[in-house]
Amino acid sequence: MAVYTEVTDDALRSFLAAYDLGELVAFRGIAEGVENSNFALKTEQGDFILTLYERRVDPADLPYFLGLMQHLAARGVSCPRPVAARDGAALRHLAGRHAAITTFLPGVWPRSVRRAHCGPVGAALAGLHLAGADYPAVRANALGPAGWPALLARALADDGAAAEALSPGLGAELTAALSGILGNWPQHLPRGHIHGDLFPDNVFFLGGAVSGLIDFYFAATDLFAYDLAICLNAWCFEADLAFNVTKARDLLGGYAGVRTLLPAELAALPVLAQGAALRFALTRLYDWVHTPPGALVTRKDPRDYVRRLRFHLAAHDVAAYGL
Amino acid sequence: MAVYTEVTDDALRSFLAAYDLGELVAFRGIAEGVENSNFALKTEQGDFILTLYERRVDPADLPYFLGLMQHLAARGVSCPRPVAARDGAALRHLAGRHAAITTFLPGVWPRSVRRAHCGPVGAALAGLHLAGADYPAVRANALGPAGWPALLARALADDGAAAEALSPGLGAELTAALSGILGNWPQHLPRGHIHGDLFPDNVFFLGGAVSGLIDFYFAATDLFAYDLAICLNAWCFEADLAFNVTKARDLLGGYAGVRTLLPAELAALPVLAQGAALRFALTRLYDWVHTPPGALVTRKDPRDYVRRLRFHLAAHDVAAYGL
Repeated sequence: MAVYTEVTDDALRSFLAAYDLGELVAFRGIAEGVENSNFALKTEQGDFILTLYERRVDPADLPYFLGLMQHLAARGVSCPRPVAARDGAALRHLAGRHAAITTFLPGVWPRSVRRAHCGPVGAALAGLHLAGADYPAVRANALGPAGWPALLARALADDGAAAEALSPGLGAELTAALSGILGNWPQHLPRGHIHGDLFPDNVFFLGGAVSGLIDFYFAATDLFAYDLAICLNAWCFEADLAFNVTKARDLLGGYAGVRTLLPAELAALPVLAQGAALRFALTRLYDWVHTPPGALVTRKDPRDYVRRLRFHLAAHDVAAYGL
Repeated sequence: MAVYTEVTDDALRSFLAAYDLGELVAFRGIAEGVENSNFALKTEQGDFILTLYERRVDPADLPYFLGLMQHLAARGVSCPRPVAARDGAALRHLAGRHAAITTFLPGVWPRSVRRAHCGPVGAALAGLHLAGADYPAVRANALGPAGWPALLARALADDGAAAEALSPGLGAELTAALSGILGNWPQHLPRGHIHGDLFPDNVFFLGGAVSGLIDFYFAATDLFAYDLAICLNAWCFEADLAFNVTKARDLLGGYAGVRTLLPAELAALPVLAQGAALRFALTRLYDWVHTPPGALVTRKDPRDYVRRLRFHLAAHDVAAYGL
């Protein structure tokens, strides 16, 4: 559901004239990605993606995101590579928005996660973490632990009435969980560039292997193991929200096969996974409260992440994750 | 905004196994088309479109639609050609829906209509009408004049309260217009297969020429000149709803350069254009009344077509359209 801004053919033609991509062949809106407007662009040179950055993306962050993709792609990570125009700049303007063309990646994102996906996702995430090591830019994670108190306050800005209506006691439950998580948050784990949103719709597979990682617009500088905890939440719960420990073992094993997980990282997994679940519960709760029912963007039920949070709060150690 | 049904990778793989299209390369939802779910499908054989037919399409009509596209494509019309699986059938099932793969067409639909688009669109429409001549199937036009009284009744089913709220007097205005249009509706004009919905988003251009006509899911057997009247409404009004008579002259001229317009067809243009404007005013009014504000499908304001209707009601003869 993601064409918020339309591009006239005149504007598109002028825009493309700055590139060496040959003649335009086709241009279609893509119904994926919820933050930005995305178009499948085909030129004589092949397939590309054109992204118009919408209001939720801070333009000041765009050089970090595009630079990270460029850096990772140059180091062999299969991620969109920003395409520079003839003047060397990849970040441009179109239809009143910041815009960039990136390379097209083959593959299909898994609409239903199978166990066989989880090892490769873990390995791909570790590869991303290693490949980003020498990318010098820094972006504080606005949706990391430092941002959660404000996020909770905004989601409960109506004195928690909407949260209460959604699930009695939810505001108090999240407030208590936040306090506990921040109190236990690890301070000295390995850090670097994290994807921050590696959900199934951001991972393409082809022939059983990961063929592409996309949507780096939540990337930031934060704990590697926190990124892995986001994946535990996104990949290892079944539709009925049962935790699949086999998938978790495969995810962690796939990761550890590429980048060694320190004992301190493993020990911190429960609180990291609690934090990751809380982060998505809070952003979803905020969206739930602030999106009219049935609006253009489908609201995701925050309770799905509250249930994940409860699972992780009951996890005593890494054994809960199959190790 | 058109992915209503998700397709799991397992289901997609099984589905594609029935075709000779080679290995799957990519699969992305397309944010265009409002009636069905559309996906850009890339295989080793190239680019295709996969459509899942949603609830607004009567499955009994699908053989007519697919047969028409097959017929037109075989006669040189640049329209999607249904791709048959190895067993010869193009109409299949996927994810609980009827589904078909069609060929990919190059081009870009014009987000803003320029005069230069109008002649080629007219010529393409006439070419479609001629190419359909020997397609033997018949589909009554449910959204033609015979269907308008019921459509009006449904749109005013709340005693016209919603129409009244939208625009005071609207129900009475549409009721009076319908009566006049049906009283003057021509009975003996040339008939055949019409597209029925040839709006700018259904016409691709490449290098100034029409490169593709898509979305045949309103096609029916009806008056050719009525199809042209739909295009007059869709292509020749400016954003401020001023009628651009130059565009109309080009549209009609482009059409007449390929298929001769009879004097009786030209004489009937005002009432045909009134009918076409009423048809879209009624379906939009119905959707407006029955779609919650801000729902997944953006509501189109029926008043835009009421204003077109008023223009055509004031047209005395074909001179109003530049001829």
